[in-house]
Amino acid sequence: MISADARVSLRRREGRLSAGIVADLTAALAARFGDALATSEAVRQQHGHTLTWIETAPPDAVLFARSRQDVIDAVRICAAHDAPIVPFGAGTSLEGHVNALHGGLSIDVSQMNRVLAVNAEDLDCVVEPGVTRKALNEHLRDTGLFFPIDPGADASIGGMAATRASGTNAVRYGTMKDRVLSLGVVTADGAYLRTASRAKKSSAGYDLTRLFVGSEGTLGAIVEVTLRLAGVPEAIAGGHCPFETVRAACDATIATIQSGLPVARIELLDALQVKACNAYSKLALPEQPTLFVEFHGSPESVAEQARRFDEIAADYTGGPFVWATKPEERSRLWQARHDAYWAAVALRPGARALATDACVPISRLADCVEETQRDIAEHKLIAPIVGHVGDGNFHVSALIDMNDPDEVARAEHFIDRLARRAVAMDGTCTGEHGVGQKKIPYVEAELGPEAIDLMRRIKLAFDPQNLFNPGKIFRA
Amino acid sequence: MISADARVSLRRREGRLSAGIVADLTAALAARFGDALATSEAVRQQHGHTLTWIETAPPDAVLFARSRQDVIDAVRICAAHDAPIVPFGAGTSLEGHVNALHGGLSIDVSQMNRVLAVNAEDLDCVVEPGVTRKALNEHLRDTGLFFPIDPGADASIGGMAATRASGTNAVRYGTMKDRVLSLGVVTADGAYLRTASRAKKSSAGYDLTRLFVGSEGTLGAIVEVTLRLAGVPEAIAGGHCPFETVRAACDATIATIQSGLPVARIELLDALQVKACNAYSKLALPEQPTLFVEFHGSPESVAEQARRFDEIAADYTGGPFVWATKPEERSRLWQARHDAYWAAVALRPGARALATDACVPISRLADCVEETQRDIAEHKLIAPIVGHVGDGNFHVSALIDMNDPDEVARAEHFIDRLARRAVAMDGTCTGEHGVGQKKIPYVEAELGPEAIDLMRRIKLAFDPQNLFNPGKIFRA
Repeated sequence: MISADARVSLRRREGRLSAGIVADLTAALAARFGDALATSEAVRQQHGHTLTWIETAPPDAVLFARSRQDVIDAVRICAAHDAPIVPFGAGTSLEGHVNALHGGLSIDVSQMNRVLAVNAEDLDCVVEPGVTRKALNEHLRDTGLFFPIDPGADASIGGMAATRASGTNAVRYGTMKDRVLSLGVVTADGAYLRTASRAKKSSAGYDLTRLFVGSEGTLGAIVEVTLRLAGVPEAIAGGHCPFETVRAACDATIATIQSGLPVARIELLDALQVKACNAYSKLALPEQPTLFVEFHGSPESVAEQARRFDEIAADYTGGPFVWATKPEERSRLWQARHDAYWAAVALRPGARALATDACVPISRLADCVEETQRDIAEHKLIAPIVGHVGDGNFHVSALIDMNDPDEVARAEHFIDRLARRAVAMDGTCTGEHGVGQKKIPYVEAELGPEAIDLMRRIKLAFDPQNLFNPGKIFRA
Repeated sequence: MISADARVSLRRREGRLSAGIVADLTAALAARFGDALATSEAVRQQHGHTLTWIETAPPDAVLFARSRQDVIDAVRICAAHDAPIVPFGAGTSLEGHVNALHGGLSIDVSQMNRVLAVNAEDLDCVVEPGVTRKALNEHLRDTGLFFPIDPGADASIGGMAATRASGTNAVRYGTMKDRVLSLGVVTADGAYLRTASRAKKSSAGYDLTRLFVGSEGTLGAIVEVTLRLAGVPEAIAGGHCPFETVRAACDATIATIQSGLPVARIELLDALQVKACNAYSKLALPEQPTLFVEFHGSPESVAEQARRFDEIAADYTGGPFVWATKPEERSRLWQARHDAYWAAVALRPGARALATDACVPISRLADCVEETQRDIAEHKLIAPIVGHVGDGNFHVSALIDMNDPDEVARAEHFIDRLARRAVAMDGTCTGEHGVGQKKIPYVEAELGPEAIDLMRRIKLAFDPQNLFNPGKIFRA
């Protein structure tokens, strides 16, 4: 244990930039970028927005960057004015990542949306950060390849790298840490660098790629991403299977993973979420805890995987298993899964959904979900659960009347307890949403002050002015 | 591009510790550790040794650490004496990683060899760093699980994490970066921390785990490793297949990977390496470029994979395919592959094998291997090639008479050209051996000065005294 005063501290930013600095900054940026710089209230609000309850904090200006050089020049101008920089992709993050807590410049890379190369033989591609995952898959349509990370939202590839996104396919295809081969980044001193070659593996020094993946815009701006792709499976089979209890569904999941079945997706919906999806997506599923599953492979291997899963599910009270054999049936099922958040929101019109996630070792998953359900009831909340349970990762969307301070307080208490429960089970307070603002204390609880100290040291070493996305991941 | 003088520089260590400091250091260490401290010439030489041509540089003393607390105390004593620290596992690294260039203490963790936990339901385990991969797999024998990373040598898990090891199974099971869930590390200020929880995935801040994986002992000492295990496959099938040319074997490999076949191992041996293995391991393989392959899965899927591979190989002049159906045949084949280094050495008694590796995007593999073979001929070297070609990674062992300065110079020139060739193909100068000492200039060529500057910044932030393994990965 190091003494607390041996730990590094970051430069602490208080409040927002002064009006004078904002005027100088925007003048300098406008001189360089002209119309690509926006300072209207609407654009600023939209770039400091958040999909959850965290208060919006708009930047002072927004640059619609079109090239790496734009980003380099913007970083240099901001550095000269000591103004914060917040990289912005599609704005779909859930933990307030893009909020400009101390003002400054939002660098919107959505117009940097070219696919620079598809190296089909190498199963990789190189893209600008503003390409969205759906646009990329559209581009790849005729190549026999696809980009398998699917967080639900049509997020930008740069943003997905910055938040270490994952989603439904992660159980088979990994997360962004596994899919990013190399990054092009602009650092706080306006330097550009590539973190790695295009080789599939490397032992060439520190793993800068994975240091930037998940750094939430605090270490630099991602301006290029090289991704590992996957071959489009010859055959896909999927379906849904109800269980008597959440525990039984979790146990069936554990058995599936342990058996080595290479399941491509295995998603839990609790009974309330099934009810929400039935209403929102016009399905008629039994309103019980349910697993949605999908298998990828050759026709023979998919059939074999399906058969083996069927047997496992039956061992855990699961069934009847309903196979979605036609592509349109399968699409409908997964569209419903992707719309689960909106289905949850629709359960209680006027309410705000407070989305959070946690991830535990899979042996603790049933305990964690059951305790969480009890806690939801005790806190008198309406909060459906969905989860990427093959990874031990699940989401809770608490539907809150933001005008009821008591309910808001109960929701905050509940979310606090969920994060601490996951940590107590040797899990993480965030499996895929990231830290942003509200999860800062839980990451401290999870990893301890020495690990946070190392993160601060990295931040200080890369960005001594604390320009990049200040106020996120850790306390200054 | 940042100006060169804006870059950070590390504290440069010159020469070895003075006799006075060594006396003080060893006295302080002996007072704390008694017999666990060794200063005999034999032990010191053995801990500064190297498996390749790099000159041995012994530490001033060796601590056989038995606990995390031993490591913490040793680090503090070394820091107080400003003495270098070199973590030591099994001593099987190939790039001079454990050489104590500036003297100091080698911390040998081979006695920290307990398996602390096997969490079978979670497919993970927690081990001390001195556990070797074979010992771990022996320990796991009855669990239905195994640890799939196999670099050939019976390396320690801590050393494998520190060098980001991979090997024959990496094409299916990934490298250490994919298999390490969390590390326990002791940093330069004597703090202990865990880099992550046991959750299968996490977005909880910077990826400290993958920063320490591959850091080659320069950022701290690994004292605990949490590993993702894999289920022992129900069925294994393997075999070997000759091809007319190296290019044909590489093209068959590319087609196999692109087709999505989940091959567990796919290894190239060039004709000279086959000849060496025939002699050393008493095989009778056709002396042609040959692929060794292995498939893991259910009996049905393995049979299907084998059938599909057979078809692909035939498309590329491969065959006849010989299947090793019996376990003992398979073991013999893979033992021969593991002994390829020793087989190469035996090709030329009295010669030293200068082993190097490179990794390129798989589309460039055939070009890279062919150009390398031509270069071997032009440099008048004897140098068989083996490769984990599914990853685009291959090894060359140049067999050198170290008493012939001209031959040594030719070998150095050849190895230099190989590293630069891989870099020019957007590959890496080291796919799995690591940087150590001799690859430092190539990592600079590969990643550029800005990326190296970030690595130095991390090193400076974590270890301002430059205590841990100075002189490796980058120039001070």
